[in-house]
Amino acid sequence: MLAVIATLHCTPENQEHLVSALKTLQFHSRQETGCERYELAQREMEDNIEIVVTELWESEADLDAHFAADHFVRFGSQAEGIVLQSEIKKYQVVQDS
Amino acid sequence: MLAVIATLHCTPENQEHLVSALKTLQFHSRQETGCERYELAQREMEDNIEIVVTELWESEADLDAHFAADHFVRFGSQAEGIVLQSEIKKYQVVQDS
Repeated sequence: MLAVIATLHCTPENQEHLVSALKTLQFHSRQETGCERYELAQREMEDNIEIVVTELWESEADLDAHFAADHFVRFGSQAEGIVLQSEIKKYQVVQDS
Repeated sequence: MLAVIATLHCTPENQEHLVSALKTLQFHSRQETGCERYELAQREMEDNIEIVVTELWESEADLDAHFAADHFVRFGSQAEGIVLQSEIKKYQVVQDS
């Protein structure tokens, strides 16, 4: 199982617009094969907003398909003008023992 | 609802020891009031290991109690010698609409 943590920054003026675009992405992503979790959270920083997307994917193939999906590509173009900085980190989930 | 993302770095030699200490912390934390999620994931970086703890807490009070809990304090002293760098980020969960 893969855990993905994506972090995006935007100005306070663009927060609503970015969250709305992320919610659309969330809606479609949750219907994808292998998507076990797709959650959004946010916090105010000194001069911008940080939004984190916490995801779980069953396999690399599922995650690759996600990155190629229309709704992900569409989000990319929507976000282009409003995301100041972003980062996607991919981890292996540590199974409960 | 609060989302907490804690990131810790250690050397490959200390990975097993740190994961083991985190699993003990995970076990106790999951029994705390307001703890909705406490999950571990890891990835190999160029010269160290990055471990992320993904958490959900119902309230600030629950999270404050967690930070004061014996098992958290105990983990802190165990981790001291082996954690190279750590960061705790706290977010507000964006509720599904």
